[in-house]
Amino acid sequence: MKNQPISGNDLARFSGPQSFMRLPQLESAAGLDVGFIGIPMDIGTSWRSGTRMGPKQLREQSAMIRPYNIQTGAAPFDALQCADLGDVAINTFNLSDTIRIITETYAAHLKHDFIPMTLGGDHTLTLPVLRAIAAKHGPVALVHVDAHADVNDEMFGERETHGTVFRRAYEEGLITADKVFQIGLRGTGYTADDFTEAAGWGFNQYLAPELWHKSLTPLAAAIKAKIGDQPCYISYDIDSLDPAYAPGTGTPEIGGLTTAQAMELIRGLRGLNIVGCDLVEVSPPYDPSGNTALTGANLMFEMLSILPGVPYR
Amino acid sequence: MKNQPISGNDLARFSGPQSFMRLPQLESAAGLDVGFIGIPMDIGTSWRSGTRMGPKQLREQSAMIRPYNIQTGAAPFDALQCADLGDVAINTFNLSDTIRIITETYAAHLKHDFIPMTLGGDHTLTLPVLRAIAAKHGPVALVHVDAHADVNDEMFGERETHGTVFRRAYEEGLITADKVFQIGLRGTGYTADDFTEAAGWGFNQYLAPELWHKSLTPLAAAIKAKIGDQPCYISYDIDSLDPAYAPGTGTPEIGGLTTAQAMELIRGLRGLNIVGCDLVEVSPPYDPSGNTALTGANLMFEMLSILPGVPYR
Amino acid sequence: MKNQPISGNDLARFSGPQSFMRLPQLESAAGLDVGFIGIPMDIGTSWRSGTRMGPKQLREQSAMIRPYNIQTGAAPFDALQCADLGDVAINTFNLSDTIRIITETYAAHLKHDFIPMTLGGDHTLTLPVLRAIAAKHGPVALVHVDAHADVNDEMFGERETHGTVFRRAYEEGLITADKVFQIGLRGTGYTADDFTEAAGWGFNQYLAPELWHKSLTPLAAAIKAKIGDQPCYISYDIDSLDPAYAPGTGTPEIGGLTTAQAMELIRGLRGLNIVGCDLVEVSPPYDPSGNTALTGANLMFEMLSILPGVPYR
Amino acid sequence: MKNQPISGNDLARFSGPQSFMRLPQLESAAGLDVGFIGIPMDIGTSWRSGTRMGPKQLREQSAMIRPYNIQTGAAPFDALQCADLGDVAINTFNLSDTIRIITETYAAHLKHDFIPMTLGGDHTLTLPVLRAIAAKHGPVALVHVDAHADVNDEMFGERETHGTVFRRAYEEGLITADKVFQIGLRGTGYTADDFTEAAGWGFNQYLAPELWHKSLTPLAAAIKAKIGDQPCYISYDIDSLDPAYAPGTGTPEIGGLTTAQAMELIRGLRGLNIVGCDLVEVSPPYDPSGNTALTGANLMFEMLSILPGVPYR
Amino acid sequence: MKNQPISGNDLARFSGPQSFMRLPQLESAAGLDVGFIGIPMDIGTSWRSGTRMGPKQLREQSAMIRPYNIQTGAAPFDALQCADLGDVAINTFNLSDTIRIITETYAAHLKHDFIPMTLGGDHTLTLPVLRAIAAKHGPVALVHVDAHADVNDEMFGERETHGTVFRRAYEEGLITADKVFQIGLRGTGYTADDFTEAAGWGFNQYLAPELWHKSLTPLAAAIKAKIGDQPCYISYDIDSLDPAYAPGTGTPEIGGLTTAQAMELIRGLRGLNIVGCDLVEVSPPYDPSGNTALTGANLMFEMLSILPGVPYR
Amino acid sequence: MKNQPISGNDLARFSGPQSFMRLPQLESAAGLDVGFIGIPMDIGTSWRSGTRMGPKQLREQSAMIRPYNIQTGAAPFDALQCADLGDVAINTFNLSDTIRIITETYAAHLKHDFIPMTLGGDHTLTLPVLRAIAAKHGPVALVHVDAHADVNDEMFGERETHGTVFRRAYEEGLITADKVFQIGLRGTGYTADDFTEAAGWGFNQYLAPELWHKSLTPLAAAIKAKIGDQPCYISYDIDSLDPAYAPGTGTPEIGGLTTAQAMELIRGLRGLNIVGCDLVEVSPPYDPSGNTALTGANLMFEMLSILPGVPYR
Ligand SMILES: [Mn+2]
Ligand SMILES: [Mn+2]
Ligand SMILES: [Mn+2]
Ligand SMILES: [Mn+2]
Ligand SMILES: [Mn+2]
Ligand SMILES: [Mn+2]
Ligand SMILES: [Mn+2]
Ligand SMILES: [Mn+2]
Ligand SMILES: [Mn+2]
Ligand SMILES: [Mn+2]
Ligand SMILES: [Mn+2]
Ligand SMILES: [Mn+2]
Repeated sequence: MKNQPISGNDLARFSGPQSFMRLPQLESAAGLDVGFIGIPMDIGTSWRSGTRMGPKQLREQSAMIRPYNIQTGAAPFDALQCADLGDVAINTFNLSDTIRIITETYAAHLKHDFIPMTLGGDHTLTLPVLRAIAAKHGPVALVHVDAHADVNDEMFGERETHGTVFRRAYEEGLITADKVFQIGLRGTGYTADDFTEAAGWGFNQYLAPELWHKSLTPLAAAIKAKIGDQPCYISYDIDSLDPAYAPGTGTPEIGGLTTAQAMELIRGLRGLNIVGCDLVEVSPPYDPSGNTALTGANLMFEMLSILPGVPYR
Repeated sequence: MKNQPISGNDLARFSGPQSFMRLPQLESAAGLDVGFIGIPMDIGTSWRSGTRMGPKQLREQSAMIRPYNIQTGAAPFDALQCADLGDVAINTFNLSDTIRIITETYAAHLKHDFIPMTLGGDHTLTLPVLRAIAAKHGPVALVHVDAHADVNDEMFGERETHGTVFRRAYEEGLITADKVFQIGLRGTGYTADDFTEAAGWGFNQYLAPELWHKSLTPLAAAIKAKIGDQPCYISYDIDSLDPAYAPGTGTPEIGGLTTAQAMELIRGLRGLNIVGCDLVEVSPPYDPSGNTALTGANLMFEMLSILPGVPYR
Repeated sequence: MKNQPISGNDLARFSGPQSFMRLPQLESAAGLDVGFIGIPMDIGTSWRSGTRMGPKQLREQSAMIRPYNIQTGAAPFDALQCADLGDVAINTFNLSDTIRIITETYAAHLKHDFIPMTLGGDHTLTLPVLRAIAAKHGPVALVHVDAHADVNDEMFGERETHGTVFRRAYEEGLITADKVFQIGLRGTGYTADDFTEAAGWGFNQYLAPELWHKSLTPLAAAIKAKIGDQPCYISYDIDSLDPAYAPGTGTPEIGGLTTAQAMELIRGLRGLNIVGCDLVEVSPPYDPSGNTALTGANLMFEMLSILPGVPYR
Repeated sequence: MKNQPISGNDLARFSGPQSFMRLPQLESAAGLDVGFIGIPMDIGTSWRSGTRMGPKQLREQSAMIRPYNIQTGAAPFDALQCADLGDVAINTFNLSDTIRIITETYAAHLKHDFIPMTLGGDHTLTLPVLRAIAAKHGPVALVHVDAHADVNDEMFGERETHGTVFRRAYEEGLITADKVFQIGLRGTGYTADDFTEAAGWGFNQYLAPELWHKSLTPLAAAIKAKIGDQPCYISYDIDSLDPAYAPGTGTPEIGGLTTAQAMELIRGLRGLNIVGCDLVEVSPPYDPSGNTALTGANLMFEMLSILPGVPYR
Repeated sequence: MKNQPISGNDLARFSGPQSFMRLPQLESAAGLDVGFIGIPMDIGTSWRSGTRMGPKQLREQSAMIRPYNIQTGAAPFDALQCADLGDVAINTFNLSDTIRIITETYAAHLKHDFIPMTLGGDHTLTLPVLRAIAAKHGPVALVHVDAHADVNDEMFGERETHGTVFRRAYEEGLITADKVFQIGLRGTGYTADDFTEAAGWGFNQYLAPELWHKSLTPLAAAIKAKIGDQPCYISYDIDSLDPAYAPGTGTPEIGGLTTAQAMELIRGLRGLNIVGCDLVEVSPPYDPSGNTALTGANLMFEMLSILPGVPYR
Repeated sequence: MKNQPISGNDLARFSGPQSFMRLPQLESAAGLDVGFIGIPMDIGTSWRSGTRMGPKQLREQSAMIRPYNIQTGAAPFDALQCADLGDVAINTFNLSDTIRIITETYAAHLKHDFIPMTLGGDHTLTLPVLRAIAAKHGPVALVHVDAHADVNDEMFGERETHGTVFRRAYEEGLITADKVFQIGLRGTGYTADDFTEAAGWGFNQYLAPELWHKSLTPLAAAIKAKIGDQPCYISYDIDSLDPAYAPGTGTPEIGGLTTAQAMELIRGLRGLNIVGCDLVEVSPPYDPSGNTALTGANLMFEMLSILPGVPYR
């Protein structure tokens, strides 16, 4: 039998190890299908900090999640061997060094064939993760759910921050531009072409106002059709959600997605050849109740539920 | 003239007695049509505690509610004699003793013909309340709004907790199984049949994803038609709402109802032969702003507004 | 070139002056097209206080807004000369004296031809602002977004409070009654005609339940058509939003607007002859995260984006 | 037997009526020795508001206090008939009218011979209370514990605010100047004689730095000796305490008293002919934990414990 | 070399396992000198709940503690083999069953010769822990630091709660009455002999007022002399501290100890034959900043620093 | 007349510009005696972040400070020309670049003869500030109040962080080692010589336990005598205070100073030839009440009050 989360009927949910869903904690990905990895950083953020505490709070809140997805029938732990691989040992005083460490750590882990599911941390982390992913799988399709396109060229002269990730990934050929889907974009910008330049590269952008009052199930279907069976990465920035649903984040933008839409979107992507996922930008000091992290942990579970090989009951 | 809430034009809303809607506080239900009763308990909860402070905060926030329901025209205080009957004197160290006390207290109150409206407190309380209700009225139809079905068989070997209420009620014949409506179910479970066994008993279950993006007015109409004139109980777990709308609760689940949907549902049930209501699982420490309790207090007022005999202007 | 907000790429968003959008701070409106003015008051509130800290927090959170409205293409700072005119020097111990001071301050400012955009403060302030506006422009059309109609006759014997504003404005001829649009009304009242008397004067009222689950774009179009080119004032009470979206306010009412709806409404009003706007009732102590103020600041920016003369890219 | 607080062994502390110490709630002071009265106001405050919620939170937290003062042996409820007289029906929109209402309400109550113990509310309330007290008892000695002397002449042209109370009381002859003791003064001022003018009237002032690191028992003894048997009023501003001990207040000043010193001071005043007490400036929004109010409620109980006639066991 | 906490220079303090001081997590005490054990319960509390989250937050905050006690020179990890033994699998719905489970779990662990250091949880847990301790070591001397004597006979008819612990321990002969030292007692009571009956049994009680403004070093020396080399247990209730120092607890009482005094007391007990320690009553929902838990974790480290065998540098 | 803070009697304290004490905001130090400068950074912190918001909250809370120091008689604005010079335009993504920018900015400002008073920001900033200070004044005496010695050699391989400041300053000859006074040291360390190596360089260290229960006036006198008239810098880390007094900081350590002691210390240093001061490590997200920042702002004012040339009344 595969690793199972500790049951809330065996050990009260407010106790036990603080691993993701109270899974076993391992050092190596050998033998795993899925590994949860924390990257506790916030030095790539431009406004409110605090995401360094994100992995801790995501794991704490994940204790409430039971193993079976009642709404969809997914039973990920019946077939996938899952564990928590702990945190990347970042250098909290040096962003570029941290980026280097992340790539190296993921490259080492990815000698094993497993799917890394990353608990952030600020969005900068997706760049070094994609470098390791692309080194293994080649350029990937990308589903990027976010209030922001994160395609700035530089910020204060720095080329690798939480706001420049996907321009760098494009330039470096880590992603297949016309298989990039950016969903939930909104907020304000510096010029009229803050977003549109990326559209010129081939990025498919879905601004929030197009999505208001609607189910995202059709959008998910369309995206799935376009991506086909190319290896695909999902990067989920919690600020794609409206601040009503995810107040605990660093750069909230009003008019965002609902959690219902987020779940419709993820559930609709079932069948993709997913090779990695992340959930970023949960900032615990701005939501001490833990509800934002609870939301993030549940979305992580939804992504787990659509991985290749998950049986449905 | 019937008892009236103290008007905010006579005494500032932030002052006066802390009874529900600043109604008179009585010891006995004699002569009442409706009595508000607090059950300040949280020892039946499995994750975050704090609902023992729920009745206090519900009453505090209810001070903002005025007597006339502008949106529907309901004028409950024109026709119903209402009062606050205070709190049940529970034993906070002993769950099973508390359950016994609740049933006895309600049985004593129900020697008078009035409708008890209960301010919780964790959901465990609905079981002993239903025992007293069924003793008076026979098995009741049930509208149960909740993220959770609360039909576990046992938790840590205990058969009466906030997660087992409606299995026990079914087994004991307190409720009419095919007139049970569970609305808003979602979250995760231990097995594929966590919910479906109850469906086998006859329970009608409405999972949250079926309800997203929709008015609940048609659902309410359908439920009302099926229940007919059987005595009916409404049990409203605040966690049926999305955590964006009700962050202050013990076991929040994402993807829930909006308050608009909650009001559509309750308003659509007008005409039922309601014999009791409760509003449970408000946990003040997780929402010090009081907004979750304000929401709960308003939903209580909406339930009051559809009781038999309420005139509409 | 017109005044520009300090760019987040020149000076980190968490630094710099605390003016609205980090615009220049001026004493006089001479030469301006738009002036942001704070009125830090809460002595006109009936339930929770704290809006005296509103202008501070609105300005603090406005630092996150960039100058270009990506969703609509509006580029207000390309054409309009904007600045922050600081706070009105109110008398915090005396409501009637404060009302006098506001009118006089606005009258003095309005010797210059500019559009005042007011950061509140409790809703009482709209009355003295309208007095100054009407003295310059004559009676105005009014778009009033609020959970409350604010048409009480008096409260504790006082005729000028946050709950009586629009009755006084009507009586004094500051507004054109049949061009008044009250949007988002809900909550509870003292009598069946709490709202309907104002309907008799000609006010157009849109209760929240009519607006649930819907885009407000059609409503905006209808309002715009009715107002035509009459000078128009927009008064935006943050409590028009659901408490999920705006928890930090003094008299929250459940079942309110979403921020998406608020933006649809404002964007749909583009083309009106707007002569003033306000954003009121943000109460920072009830949302220390700052998200309610962030929402308010963004709605202010949306109103700025539809002012006459704003170019769209 | 006299009225007793509801015992925590009869009814859990988190339930029951929200009166002070869960005493009976009465309308009239007839037959009482002591009456607790709330004055829920904050419109006399100059910086942070919120004290309008003070009486509510003081009563809520008082539920934790048991009837017997273990540290001193005082047993106030063995001899004194106590009750909660509810809140004064202030006009929250008009400070001067509120001041009038307070005096009239107290004057009416004081037709009965009892000691009013006031739960504030901002410090402005002490002026109208003293007017009623002096009308009955003549000029009183005053023990005034506060970070501030509250002897401004006016603020924004207003002569009756929370910062002018004791100048007005002096001018009106409500207090005996050389029997006024101001304890804990500190903070900053506008001129060198902000405090010293009052010293010229005869006020005895004890600045905080003189009191650091010391027991206040000797000071209390000295004050008691000087006051003798003149009727005496104690006005306790919670901001006399250091913000570490009382964070939830409107105008905190660092370097204040400890709660140990506050208790030493009050206990040392036993034997005075106390005719009234107040506890003011608790602002709940700035301490949602309730600990500041808990502190205030305990200091109120300490003052109760030294009233004339209290037996010691 | 013995187990070492993960260094903050190897892995950022905000990452890594959530064990106490990031020590290894083990199932068995075999080979250990010291084992940290969590008991996540709050169903024995009488006022505010929330201590069920205590062990989690104590561990989270303990990540900031480095291995060497700079102020005293203690180097516990140089000589003692330490690990985290996880949480006791309590039954959160049944207090008496939980008490049984705790005793059995500790009895099983204590087949190994190690010192259990317990992270609470409410104070009820000390009774079952003492049962296991006394079964191994015989009656113990007790240093009990607390605002409350916890010697009630029963509460709501229950004989085993957080308020009755030391009466039961006395009756059962688990502790040597004249070697019991209760330090920091204060607050209020039901009768004059709430505390004094225990004094009659031989308990040595030190009320808070005796300790104000003083170093506790002399008291510690006196206690140490009286206890001699009898096996000794330290039970540290965080509410012994003043709420200024430990706001996050269930039954705070003003006028308590400072953390300086707490450290003086513990440091002064070095040399005792300590066989167990606990730190109880940290309630995270009432201090989301984590500072109360940080204080508790540091006091735990101070107790660790005085265990037999700890070298001093 | 010199620049004066805006009076709270001219403009309500909750309004007006958000400069330090509402002083004029200038770009250049020309003509100033004292300039307040913000350095909004937190990327040099090792545990909790958030100090990037420090300067904002320090300025906001400084609005409560009046110009005259009642307790000491200091009247700094009578003689010193003071202004707020805004924030340093740091690069929030790059610590070493930020350090470079700070030195350059201060070097440019210090072409004028004025005293920079820095609002932090994390403690890293003191290193680049000292570089600029020493370039102008030569090596300085240092009064360093802190829980931590900040003399690590490196952290994660980085040599310039908030934990290495004073080792670097010593190595670079920016400070005169035997005129360095480190006050309030405590907490835990990695080895026995974490602090003592610095003692070997000549640093004078005062651990917290030596200071408990004592006035710091004698210590200040001793320090002043040893420093004599050498140019002196004061670096005040808010975590020198006990977390009870300053909860909003990144690396709190229990058993710290009281604010009374902090004021005794600063006041006792009057007469030193102070050439610069800073107040660092206020982290607003961990104290949303603002009280920690209020404390910091008051300590800044105390430092201002002892600058050369300040008259005393
Ligand atoms: Mn992003
Ligand atoms: Mn984003
Ligand atoms: Mn339920
Ligand atoms: Mn539920
Ligand atoms: Mn309004
Ligand atoms: Mn409103
Ligand atoms: Mn005062
Ligand atoms: Mn004061
Ligand atoms: Mn205890
Ligand atoms: Mn205790
Ligand atoms: Mn430091
Ligand atoms: Mn430090």
